Amino acid sequence: MYDLTVELRPGREKCLYEQIYEYIRQEIREGKLRPGERLPSTRSLAEYLQISRSTASLAYDQLLAEGYIASQPYRGYYVCRMEELYRLDTGEESVAGEVEPGGARVPCVVDFSPTATDMSRFPFSVWRKINKNILSQGGGSLFVQGDAQGEYSLRETISRYLHSSRGVNCTPQQIIVGAGNDYLLLLLEKILGRHVRIAMENPTYKRAYQIFGSFAYEITTVDMDESGMTVSGLRQSDATAAYVMPSHQYPTGVLMPIGRRLELLKWANEAPGRYLIEDDYDSEFRYKGKPIPSLQASDTQGRVIYIGTFSKSIAPAIRVSYMVLPQDLLERYRQQCYFYSATVSRIDQKVLEEFIGEGYFERYLNKMRKCYKEKHDLLLEGLADFEADFRVTGENAGLHLLLTGRRGQTEDELIATALAQGVRVYGLSDSLVGKAEEQPGRTVLLGYGGLGLEDIKNGLALLRQAWL
Amino acid sequence: MYDLTVELRPGREKCLYEQIYEYIRQEIREGKLRPGERLPSTRSLAEYLQISRSTASLAYDQLLAEGYIASQPYRGYYVCRMEELYRLDTGEESVAGEVEPGGARVPCVVDFSPTATDMSRFPFSVWRKINKNILSQGGGSLFVQGDAQGEYSLRETISRYLHSSRGVNCTPQQIIVGAGNDYLLLLLEKILGRHVRIAMENPTYKRAYQIFGSFAYEITTVDMDESGMTVSGLRQSDATAAYVMPSHQYPTGVLMPIGRRLELLKWANEAPGRYLIEDDYDSEFRYKGKPIPSLQASDTQGRVIYIGTFSKSIAPAIRVSYMVLPQDLLERYRQQCYFYSATVSRIDQKVLEEFIGEGYFERYLNKMRKCYKEKHDLLLEGLADFEADFRVTGENAGLHLLLTGRRGQTEDELIATALAQGVRVYGLSDSLVGKAEEQPGRTVLLGYGGLGLEDIKNGLALLRQAWL
Repeated sequence: MYDLTVELRPGREKCLYEQIYEYIRQEIREGKLRPGERLPSTRSLAEYLQISRSTASLAYDQLLAEGYIASQPYRGYYVCRMEELYRLDTGEESVAGEVEPGGARVPCVVDFSPTATDMSRFPFSVWRKINKNILSQGGGSLFVQGDAQGEYSLRETISRYLHSSRGVNCTPQQIIVGAGNDYLLLLLEKILGRHVRIAMENPTYKRAYQIFGSFAYEITTVDMDESGMTVSGLRQSDATAAYVMPSHQYPTGVLMPIGRRLELLKWANEAPGRYLIEDDYDSEFRYKGKPIPSLQASDTQGRVIYIGTFSKSIAPAIRVSYMVLPQDLLERYRQQCYFYSATVSRIDQKVLEEFIGEGYFERYLNKMRKCYKEKHDLLLEGLADFEADFRVTGENAGLHLLLTGRRGQTEDELIATALAQGVRVYGLSDSLVGKAEEQPGRTVLLGYGGLGLEDIKNGLALLRQAWL
Repeated sequence: MYDLTVELRPGREKCLYEQIYEYIRQEIREGKLRPGERLPSTRSLAEYLQISRSTASLAYDQLLAEGYIASQPYRGYYVCRMEELYRLDTGEESVAGEVEPGGARVPCVVDFSPTATDMSRFPFSVWRKINKNILSQGGGSLFVQGDAQGEYSLRETISRYLHSSRGVNCTPQQIIVGAGNDYLLLLLEKILGRHVRIAMENPTYKRAYQIFGSFAYEITTVDMDESGMTVSGLRQSDATAAYVMPSHQYPTGVLMPIGRRLELLKWANEAPGRYLIEDDYDSEFRYKGKPIPSLQASDTQGRVIYIGTFSKSIAPAIRVSYMVLPQDLLERYRQQCYFYSATVSRIDQKVLEEFIGEGYFERYLNKMRKCYKEKHDLLLEGLADFEADFRVTGENAGLHLLLTGRRGQTEDELIATALAQGVRVYGLSDSLVGKAEEQPGRTVLLGYGGLGLEDIKNGLALLRQAWL
């Protein structure tokens, strides 16, 4: 095993874990640590360098996240092979091979990931300060078991936030706080029961599709038009519930107009036991026009189950989502699910409550809206050159745009030619959940949330070389 | 609405929320705040007193937890009626009535709750310090989405802890970290599939029974003897899985001997697809003899699903549990459930990792084992006087004892006569999940985890008056 003799300089401008991370990264880049080579365990590294294990872990985590190292079952941490670092992740090796037969692969320089977010402006010091205050103020009472639905005061805060920003009409009693959307959907399964036939758009948010698939739900895909899920398709589907993202459909970016929303609500009101599941996952980020109220805001009959998350608007690691239940489902939850205990610690809930309640969340959202708008505008401007060859859609909201080739290039070709220039773009067909209308796909997604302005300019220049 | 003019003295020995809590409690006790009276919302209280909303919430939470106030749907916080505060919670009003017909109810002075734990010795300052270090050291990398199974380094730490303290044989790869046992059971349902016939002891841990009931599982109860679940009963039940607590059955306290464990493992090995779910919920607290290894430790064929939690051993608000999957189920998890994202924030995982990794957890456990043993011994000694009239069982481990009357008193009578002296004890039949062998029940539970030594002495004296 390699001997990692990092010269640590405590008290320098960089913290210890960063020094270790940079040292190892440099060793890998320079080939001193070779592909396949095993790294010491975090424990032995910690002992060797006389640091805490969590410092060692943080350094490894960073390297893992960036793909320099990998962890292997039963064996520990290994240095990645360089091909693995820059591997094309479409599952179709041949595509990349066709473009550059036998040639050296180009490292990915700009990654237009549609799921990445920008954490660089997060008010870490505020978060730390609140954390510290809550912990020093709370004492023992914070460590006892809390309300199964989530702390009442946090639910009050969320209901006010949802009302003012999303037009959602609900009481704190209707809100269930849970550790992520996936958990809330698991709980919803127990509330709705097993005999659900659920309609989804196609393409749609793949994880929700996978989760419904792991339930005993029958899934039916319904055609979309430029207003979102078609109600004629929904009627034909015989579904009892529909999963929709009316404010910003993923991945197409379609905004459902009020007319279609009212048609959907009418459908839901026509038979007992019909529900609309509204996933309002990134409604905070809209750049043009007024904010669009939620579908729930138009619901007068209690047919909408509203789900939202702080993982997108605050940070992916904040595992806090919320679900707003209509009254009849709230009764069922109380009868059938009261014994499921809370999944978010009281401390985390209190920190979040204060972060929102004291106005930090609003300020952060405004800052991020501005930050993402700047990236969005830069990308959109730059794509003007592509106008002759590509159609751009999905603008005005969210963290990605869609490009559809006008010259018959397939999605796979677009991905491969971009990657040959060191740019990663993503295929729309990743989000397809049934048969596609058009095969092969011709649309790619360009996410900008996680990129800096320079990266975007750089990426655009490379894409020009690749595609124009 | 009442005007809560609390004279706050910042910087005094008591923190703000405690001052508010004590002020309101005093006002209620003195009748200045009357039953049914509405309290200001946390928001308006915060504005009025110029404090943060979380401080106001903490004060209300404490009052809620202690039963001075209640929150009502759509209306806010109210002062409880005194009868409500001290209400007999058996659902059979007549029992209490028979004992003291028309008489004034006696407040509950000592509550032998079997689920209460003692947080007074928790090293809050250490927890705060670790939290602070992690947050200041981690920066942005802590806020990105983590591994779905939980941070690898935390799983390493847990696997070492489980191996050394519980004899569990597993790799970090086999561990799934989740936000509480309930969530892990929801995930397990997706791994095991829906066609499970599960055997449970009777009485058993009620919440697990309720959760399995909310799945489509068929539940079958199997007879117990002094070694726990009988294997003849299990064979007759046609079950495909059995839920057991071999180290300390709840609520009976039975420790399953090695012979019975091997019989259970033999049963599991006799047909494919059979599993034993081992809930090792409070194995940390054993006062006599050597620590008992887990059932998983004896499993050579991968038939045991091991579940444990930090909610009992650290604090109820720490929503972190872990599940160890045998290899075949791990494969199924990876194929069928890989899309379920992590439910515990990375920050919380890192704090926990350091708390365990730096030895604080071990020290705390040792301290608590000593603390609980002292309470256990005091209660057991005091119960010597009851020997002629009661049989005491369930000693040597856990946080409660069982008393069975020898003179034919029913459980309901014991609860009511104790409450007439201001002592709350709990019926064994609360944990019955099918038909009881003996009706009516004659056994009560006395939990001591949450009581101080003086409370225990006081409670014993009152029980002597009630029962001897």
